[in-house]
Amino acid sequence: MTIATAPVSVRMTLAEVRALARRVLLQVGLSGDHAHAVAETMVAGERDGCTSHGLYRLLVAAKSIRAGTVVPDAIPLLSEPARALVRVDGGGGFAQLAFETGRAMLAEKARRYGIAALALNHVVHFAALWPEVEWLADEGLVALAFTPSHAWVAPAGGTQPVFGTNPIAFGWPRPGRLPFVFDLATSAVARGEIELHRRAGKPVPDDWGYDAAGQATTDAEAVLAGAMRTFGGHKGSALAAMVELIAGPLIGDMTSAESLAADGGAGGSPLGGELIVAIDPAGFLGDQVEAHLARAEGMFAAIEGQGARLPSQRRYAARAQSMAHGVEIPAALLADIDALAAGE
Amino acid sequence: MTIATAPVSVRMTLAEVRALARRVLLQVGLSGDHAHAVAETMVAGERDGCTSHGLYRLLVAAKSIRAGTVVPDAIPLLSEPARALVRVDGGGGFAQLAFETGRAMLAEKARRYGIAALALNHVVHFAALWPEVEWLADEGLVALAFTPSHAWVAPAGGTQPVFGTNPIAFGWPRPGRLPFVFDLATSAVARGEIELHRRAGKPVPDDWGYDAAGQATTDAEAVLAGAMRTFGGHKGSALAAMVELIAGPLIGDMTSAESLAADGGAGGSPLGGELIVAIDPAGFLGDQVEAHLARAEGMFAAIEGQGARLPSQRRYAARAQSMAHGVEIPAALLADIDALAAGE
Repeated sequence: MTIATAPVSVRMTLAEVRALARRVLLQVGLSGDHAHAVAETMVAGERDGCTSHGLYRLLVAAKSIRAGTVVPDAIPLLSEPARALVRVDGGGGFAQLAFETGRAMLAEKARRYGIAALALNHVVHFAALWPEVEWLADEGLVALAFTPSHAWVAPAGGTQPVFGTNPIAFGWPRPGRLPFVFDLATSAVARGEIELHRRAGKPVPDDWGYDAAGQATTDAEAVLAGAMRTFGGHKGSALAAMVELIAGPLIGDMTSAESLAADGGAGGSPLGGELIVAIDPAGFLGDQVEAHLARAEGMFAAIEGQGARLPSQRRYAARAQSMAHGVEIPAALLADIDALAAGE
Repeated sequence: MTIATAPVSVRMTLAEVRALARRVLLQVGLSGDHAHAVAETMVAGERDGCTSHGLYRLLVAAKSIRAGTVVPDAIPLLSEPARALVRVDGGGGFAQLAFETGRAMLAEKARRYGIAALALNHVVHFAALWPEVEWLADEGLVALAFTPSHAWVAPAGGTQPVFGTNPIAFGWPRPGRLPFVFDLATSAVARGEIELHRRAGKPVPDDWGYDAAGQATTDAEAVLAGAMRTFGGHKGSALAAMVELIAGPLIGDMTSAESLAADGGAGGSPLGGELIVAIDPAGFLGDQVEAHLARAEGMFAAIEGQGARLPSQRRYAARAQSMAHGVEIPAALLADIDALAAGE
């Protein structure tokens, strides 16, 4: 007897991932420019083994477009509020195209003035920050990026949500190598991690968060309805507050609490701002950039030489594999995406 | 029978603390400009209840001066390596005068360009970073400061020292109020905390650090000779690496490992650089600064409204007390300071 079996996953090249992402984003209503920009971050997610930021995000994007919580054909507006500052008003569209619109001018200003900053305003975030800082590091610049999200995280010493997951990303150019990059949430864990526990019906450790009454709990659903903790106690909480301030009021955009209130229970992705700072090593170092970047390599060697990992190492290992052999996409996800494209 | 008792502590006004600090710093050989600048941070330490950064530091300063690990009459050199960058070469002197030399130009450039950065090079650090960011916040600017120290801290996943205690300080102006300020070491605890345990012969928790062989230990002396941990696991470790890079190689100055090697076992304070970034809220906000800073106040209210503390709250409470009633200085410390001034 022969049993017919469906494949569990499908191997795709990155070009195929890109083509699929673009096609589906266009089909669900995104304009061409946005579809191209958003597709690139999904390709980068699959390529680097960050599958939660890969093709899975097509489902999230489609939901936002259909719910009307993102403007699918927003045209980003570039301006120069001060000599070393760039602003892109994203007009309620996804953040990716806004960043693409402003990044060249940010890099140019960093080289001209030594340091510069780019504010993205009025954009919908549903991707990681590392693609932004990695792009700038590839340009030879040192980069920092910050964004609030939705108020899901309690300050240290409290139990009620104030902060978003408020990531801090950093990129450092390494001549002849992929850059040193990290992108860390200031929440104790990723929100998606709690979602996974909820779906699996598994308890979470009792130091991840609080229920709505402010009690520590192991119930994933209760934490999602209550508040997560920050990482690193009062220090992580201080950094989360900093992200709120510099990527919120400082650039004239919403705090995580305001973003959640604006969402009004629609369940959309966070809407708000992002701050990106770029510093040109040549600003302080002049013609001595090479010598000083070589000293930085000494620090990386001291870390790796004792068997400790650099933050981006796992992603880069996945990248090398993906570029050579493609990626495995779960067949169930592809079926969901097909249904999406068919308008189901 | 009457028993003569010596006072345990002496109440002094802040003006008396300032006069004492200046006099002793001059007596131990510091030039007038340095004595004034260094005395101010000691006054600020006593005033804010941070006694480990108060008059006690006179003993540390004197030790550095006598050991020849600081240049007592260094003249800071100001330069403009790029339009939005300021550099002060401290010439091996204490960092305070270098900061005073560069801060007005940093503030001016932040207002002119929207964002600016100041590198202090070749300075000896033995003070907190919060006075720097608080000064800038008092000027209405948003400020970030970073500095490496000596290689005492292991990266996450390792056990051998690479990083310094690598603080990150942040200041945010609050109209009509003292600014929001934090100054946090990226090490799990302050090094002084481990010193206190060592002196008291008390064990430390086994997650503070490792002995020189890389084993977790509760022996404070062994941790001091081995390596401390970062705060917040791999996230704190990533931030510590960032501080090394942006306040070390990026500004042409030493990493914590290089600083410790340069010290050559003399036990001097860390010698190296500091990076300070200032952003003018008016850069992005124009004439809307007031409205957006008011929204930031909403976030502070949400934190304090649930009984959680803001990072600078304890310091500011101590400050209010000190300004009204003076401070208590331990008599034993005053005796040590007297002996110092007498050249003993």
